[in-house]
Amino acid sequence: MEDLKKRIHEISVQAKDASRSLALMTTEKKNICLQGMAKALQESEEEILEANEIDLEKGEAAGLSKPMLDRLKLTTSRINSMIRGINQVISLPDPVGVELKKTILPNNLKLRKVTSPIGVISIIYESRPNVTSDAAVLCFKSGNATILRGGKEAFYTNMAISKCMIRGAAAVCPEFDPYTIQFIPTVQREVIPILLSQVGLVDLCIPRGGESLIRAVAECSHVPVIKHYKGVCHIYLHEDADLDMAERIVINAKTQRPGVCNAVETLLIHEAIALKALLRIGETLIKKGVILRCDEESYNLLLKNLPTDLFENHVEHADESDWDKEYLDLILSVKLVETLEEAVSHINHFGSGHSDCIITASTITSSYFQESVDSAVVYWNASTRFTDGGEFGMGAEIGISTDKIGARGPMGLMELTSYKWLVDGEGQIRE
Amino acid sequence: MEDLKKRIHEISVQAKDASRSLALMTTEKKNICLQGMAKALQESEEEILEANEIDLEKGEAAGLSKPMLDRLKLTTSRINSMIRGINQVISLPDPVGVELKKTILPNNLKLRKVTSPIGVISIIYESRPNVTSDAAVLCFKSGNATILRGGKEAFYTNMAISKCMIRGAAAVCPEFDPYTIQFIPTVQREVIPILLSQVGLVDLCIPRGGESLIRAVAECSHVPVIKHYKGVCHIYLHEDADLDMAERIVINAKTQRPGVCNAVETLLIHEAIALKALLRIGETLIKKGVILRCDEESYNLLLKNLPTDLFENHVEHADESDWDKEYLDLILSVKLVETLEEAVSHINHFGSGHSDCIITASTITSSYFQESVDSAVVYWNASTRFTDGGEFGMGAEIGISTDKIGARGPMGLMELTSYKWLVDGEGQIRE
Repeated sequence: MEDLKKRIHEISVQAKDASRSLALMTTEKKNICLQGMAKALQESEEEILEANEIDLEKGEAAGLSKPMLDRLKLTTSRINSMIRGINQVISLPDPVGVELKKTILPNNLKLRKVTSPIGVISIIYESRPNVTSDAAVLCFKSGNATILRGGKEAFYTNMAISKCMIRGAAAVCPEFDPYTIQFIPTVQREVIPILLSQVGLVDLCIPRGGESLIRAVAECSHVPVIKHYKGVCHIYLHEDADLDMAERIVINAKTQRPGVCNAVETLLIHEAIALKALLRIGETLIKKGVILRCDEESYNLLLKNLPTDLFENHVEHADESDWDKEYLDLILSVKLVETLEEAVSHINHFGSGHSDCIITASTITSSYFQESVDSAVVYWNASTRFTDGGEFGMGAEIGISTDKIGARGPMGLMELTSYKWLVDGEGQIRE
Repeated sequence: MEDLKKRIHEISVQAKDASRSLALMTTEKKNICLQGMAKALQESEEEILEANEIDLEKGEAAGLSKPMLDRLKLTTSRINSMIRGINQVISLPDPVGVELKKTILPNNLKLRKVTSPIGVISIIYESRPNVTSDAAVLCFKSGNATILRGGKEAFYTNMAISKCMIRGAAAVCPEFDPYTIQFIPTVQREVIPILLSQVGLVDLCIPRGGESLIRAVAECSHVPVIKHYKGVCHIYLHEDADLDMAERIVINAKTQRPGVCNAVETLLIHEAIALKALLRIGETLIKKGVILRCDEESYNLLLKNLPTDLFENHVEHADESDWDKEYLDLILSVKLVETLEEAVSHINHFGSGHSDCIITASTITSSYFQESVDSAVVYWNASTRFTDGGEFGMGAEIGISTDKIGARGPMGLMELTSYKWLVDGEGQIRE
């Protein structure tokens, strides 16, 4: 245990030192390093696939589920997609050194607020090995050293990928410090609390994975954590909603990719349009295989008005625990509300602060909704599925935050920076 | 204990609810409330001074030190200064609803990044009662509900001030929710960990006080904390420093107000100008009553070259523990360095990331210094004493942050906001 503590502390000190030189690296040099990483991944495909084979064999022996094994499995195409990710990051502007504000104070001090790297970022993640390169290159381009801690299932794969990236950068850039990207070379669970106690060395932790991983990280961490626990996203159909549009959006938000955090989980409907909306949208959802978990009123409306063959096996009673559940599946909870305010209050109470939407024809109503709903992204007449760094034009994303300190919503390169104040004087002193 | 937990949870729920309506309050209404608070403070001077008298009597009986009692003591002039603070906040622009970014995506989605309140902010502070109004009004104008927890020495004073502010706002604005500003009505120590466990209700904690308070808060908190532990500020004199300017700045940064966090604590001098700089600045500092804690080289230089009467009782040996000490007193540690890089590395290693300065004639040198030094504010040719919300043109400040997630440097109204993404569509769905 003492040895492990010493080792993790050492890794953190090395990362902090590496972050100092990385902070000074020009955009051009950073891009050269990134190109080196991409090239090395290309050339080391065989080595990485061999390492992945070891993980897959161990995983099968350990009885991992099919979907788990699929997430773990690398192919040429998946490695190519990691390489495309690196090339995309190369093409993005450097987020460091951007002037956010510039003023000249009355005493002629020149004040600039300029983006700067955060320092050392620890990424704690589960089984997808592509996170190793995706996260490391985003952190790298934004001037941050990374300490990677991947899931034990992907240990050999992650190790091979990170080694290969470090080798690739070092081969093309002598200034590249190999401690800029470090993969923790042990699967011991005790690593996490030790790593997250390195206050002053590790500046931020970004956990990526399921809710239980993220809660465990947030609870034990002594360094700031940026995260979202889950996405319980809502769509509220106001009484003046265009039902064509509503149907299109709800179907998209629920069924296009139900297993992701920006898929809708709860549909709120103003009671004035309940029957019409329920019949129309409910029927289409059911035909797409969606189960509706309904409050008393919507259940009864559907029971009376839906053809029995559609109703049976597709409409269920919701209980109180459904309102804050992230199904990640073809299930949608449904609730009628009497007013706009009730919809807002339901969302603020049960939602996860991720992405919520109103469908309405009125700009006054949508403004009220957007101001009142306390979520990272608030939509008017558009699918919640757009909450994504790529869709938002960030080029790439490292995750989505529902926090309010630091980045909120999709996190791209810019969201991986802090800022500092630079003050230029000519000898000014304070009177 | 269970009762206390229940009570603190209830306070937090009330604060969260109040923050919802405050988030929707117009600037005009918020200013009316603030005027009401200022008026009530004016009218309740007697009541507040009486409460203060109780605290002072208890403090004397408990044997509080003179400076402590002085910090605790309110006078008409100190109450007027609180009122001036409120009027100043009224005059500042509303930081909520400011558009930080606006883009139209290729699919015609309109994307806006807009400032929004953080929600509920807990302020944990020590003995100065003016923090009660200063912090509450800054949080209020930025749309945040506050939960105040002041030092037990100022309990009755703080209670009187907060009651008076709530009464004043309620008298002029029926929409004002009295739970917007809450003062915790008990001095039990157990309150703090309970309050800082209200994840999802309390969004942020800002501790204000000495290092030990801040460390205790940061260590037990499960909600984000924005803080600075201490200010170990440096001034580095490069070999080309203008010594006139250097002298003026060092004297100002050390002696104008030595007890504050932006006062300089360590002077680094390039060895090429060591003797000249030490004789000139050292002598002036000593005449101003400053003790110099010197490394071996600077000690020996002063021993050989300074008149004995100046040297004796004013020059001491520094030990390793001096380099990260915040003296808050007329003491300055002094160290010679061989290179600019050594100065930067010393600052990044021993500094507190608060405010650091270089004196140099070269823009290349100053740029390198400003890019490399990992501090909230990095000065070129100006006194570190300018790190202050007022001096930076923020109008008022709630504190200074050395964190890198969320606000960094002086924190004014804008730094008390988060942001959200508002997306306006016409039925767009994700393909």
